[in-house]
Amino acid sequence: MATLLVFEFPSTGPFGDETVRAYRGLAEDIAGQAGLIWKVWTEAPERGVAGGVYLFADRAAADAYTAMHTERLAGFGVTDVTATSYEVNEALSAIDHAVLRR
Amino acid sequence: MATLLVFEFPSTGPFGDETVRAYRGLAEDIAGQAGLIWKVWTEAPERGVAGGVYLFADRAAADAYTAMHTERLAGFGVTDVTATSYEVNEALSAIDHAVLRR
Repeated sequence: MATLLVFEFPSTGPFGDETVRAYRGLAEDIAGQAGLIWKVWTEAPERGVAGGVYLFADRAAADAYTAMHTERLAGFGVTDVTATSYEVNEALSAIDHAVLRR
Repeated sequence: MATLLVFEFPSTGPFGDETVRAYRGLAEDIAGQAGLIWKVWTEAPERGVAGGVYLFADRAAADAYTAMHTERLAGFGVTDVTATSYEVNEALSAIDHAVLRR
């Protein structure tokens, strides 16, 4: 069953176009992550947070990524990370135009 | 700019296949929502919550949906709703296979 993962952590930037310059290489690395279907990169500068919303093929892939990415963020000096996972209702999501496969 | 919206609220079910039977009509209604690109239906039975992750074409469409859906949920007796919105970094999301258009 597909698993959706919401990451959020404090960020003072970069935001917007600067984020693309800073994190293109990271995005290319994430694109090859085992079990990843897609990631939406998110930011809310007015709240001082950034993060991502991920769809994984199953819970095991989401859990493995959560452990790895939390450690990677700590390496960037980013702590106070919240990672929230959900089961996906695939039938209802398909009615609402969601893409659930690569 | 695309806006991502995360809804979460307390739920004692239905979950899984029963949700499809209960909410197919609602999903079909949401599919025609102005400005909606997609919705992923989410649930975490072990935490007693459900919700959805939405991609909207812009902030105005996300805000309008948040107001309408919060009122609709209240009509179902669902309160204690959290709705969190984020700006989407479209360039990085595209690298990571996210579908950002209908």
